[in-house]
Amino acid sequence: MDVFALPAEVRERTSALRRAGSRVAFVPTMGALHAGHGSLFDVARRHADCVIASIFVNPTQFGPAEDFDRYPRPFAADAAFCAAAGVDILFCPRREDMYAPEHSILVVEGALTRGLCGPFRPGHFRGVLTVVTQLLNIVQPDVAVFGQKDAQQARLIQTLVRDLHMHTRVLVAPTWRDPDGLAMSSRNQYLSSDERRHALALSQALQLGETLYAQGVRDAAQVCARMHAVCATAGAAAVIEYVEAVDFATLRPVVELVDGTLLAVCVRIGRTRLIDNVVLGRARVAREYDLV
Amino acid sequence: MDVFALPAEVRERTSALRRAGSRVAFVPTMGALHAGHGSLFDVARRHADCVIASIFVNPTQFGPAEDFDRYPRPFAADAAFCAAAGVDILFCPRREDMYAPEHSILVVEGALTRGLCGPFRPGHFRGVLTVVTQLLNIVQPDVAVFGQKDAQQARLIQTLVRDLHMHTRVLVAPTWRDPDGLAMSSRNQYLSSDERRHALALSQALQLGETLYAQGVRDAAQVCARMHAVCATAGAAAVIEYVEAVDFATLRPVVELVDGTLLAVCVRIGRTRLIDNVVLGRARVAREYDLV
Repeated sequence: MDVFALPAEVRERTSALRRAGSRVAFVPTMGALHAGHGSLFDVARRHADCVIASIFVNPTQFGPAEDFDRYPRPFAADAAFCAAAGVDILFCPRREDMYAPEHSILVVEGALTRGLCGPFRPGHFRGVLTVVTQLLNIVQPDVAVFGQKDAQQARLIQTLVRDLHMHTRVLVAPTWRDPDGLAMSSRNQYLSSDERRHALALSQALQLGETLYAQGVRDAAQVCARMHAVCATAGAAAVIEYVEAVDFATLRPVVELVDGTLLAVCVRIGRTRLIDNVVLGRARVAREYDLV
Repeated sequence: MDVFALPAEVRERTSALRRAGSRVAFVPTMGALHAGHGSLFDVARRHADCVIASIFVNPTQFGPAEDFDRYPRPFAADAAFCAAAGVDILFCPRREDMYAPEHSILVVEGALTRGLCGPFRPGHFRGVLTVVTQLLNIVQPDVAVFGQKDAQQARLIQTLVRDLHMHTRVLVAPTWRDPDGLAMSSRNQYLSSDERRHALALSQALQLGETLYAQGVRDAAQVCARMHAVCATAGAAAVIEYVEAVDFATLRPVVELVDGTLLAVCVRIGRTRLIDNVVLGRARVAREYDLV
């Protein structure tokens, strides 16, 4: 595995690969890698000859009160993880190589970011869209793989690629879970053992939502209320930010559940903000949204 | 000359050219082509094996009270002009092929757009940045050529390419002028013969600025006041929007004139908004700003 820090190095390598006819798949990450990332690398491998991962804790997508400083950065372990996972090229840029001192261009979005995490994390998706545009421009991959755990982000990136006419196909890989259902996240390591137990409320709420849908319940308000009640079992230190049923295409709230409805929850447990989601009828809408 | 309407057609062609080792130069235009555009095609030809021009009157860069509807669209003449100028590929997309119905991604800028035309044309540069990002992503040229007449736009595009890590070099070609000094512009055809005579005030003001600088005058306020007085000779139907001396790097006002200072003027004459500029010591700062 080659490790590059400079955008120009990655650009030259991927240009050469493309000229040689190789297909390139890209998995951008913020490091602190876990089995969920490993599954993204596996998806990337199935779609390309060369797998490129990036590790960059992007400062512009963290709010001033968020966890940028304490976000885990276990670089040696991450590099070993990538090498063992068969990643061909690891790109770890420095902040100053991504952002010029006078950096002034931003990529923004005005529809999909209005709901879900958008209002709770002002500026977050602007930071994500800007850095992902930079990374996609540097790597110019044929395929990029994002995790469904960050469903709003994944749909935004698909919209970014469509609206700015980028040459990359954006695949959305399934959320990876611990055996008890907790969605894997680099932020799970912030949780105390009590908090981790309470955090199961998120996946339990979504499981209930899926069960009700399978039983024929279609009323979104009713299902969200039932899911909300499950999230509320996360204890006194838990704050429910949202429990929503939205159209996966537009991320706008729906009245009636259908295949392609996204059930999404966000609960803060202590200092840790956790999100999780499911797409109803996932297999039946997979092709429409490049869900793998 | 090949003419394409679909982004995918242009993308396939330029990908094939790149794989074959050709260098591609791109000149985006809004049509209504004149000798100024011709000079951009000449610059493009000197820097590449293949010259691609686009004609797209981009709706998102016009304000609601601006001239989108009456902007000239002489397509047949433009196509003939391109063919005669040796353009290899002409890209004329339709609005619906550039913007999906649910288009929601925008590219914005927060520093260079604050002055000059920015405050007078809210939303204009957001529209320019978004469409140029789209076009550069579709064509993926090695070189793109913009005219210095739109100096703020040219610097913005250079900033766009730097900040989003695009693989394109942005060259800025000299303003082309009628023999009496009027900067060529597609909008000049809006001018009555009286208005056209009055419009000479812009280039005369800039000539005075250059002369004063050559004579050793360095005080920006003094030079701008003298230039303002010349612009004021454009008659009762003229409204001066700005007469400014700014740093060409940052577009921020300067106190003292130096090589690399941009003198820029904007005067509305009747219904027509005209802009013009010069870069002091242009030849001496040309390399720094890719001025050709």
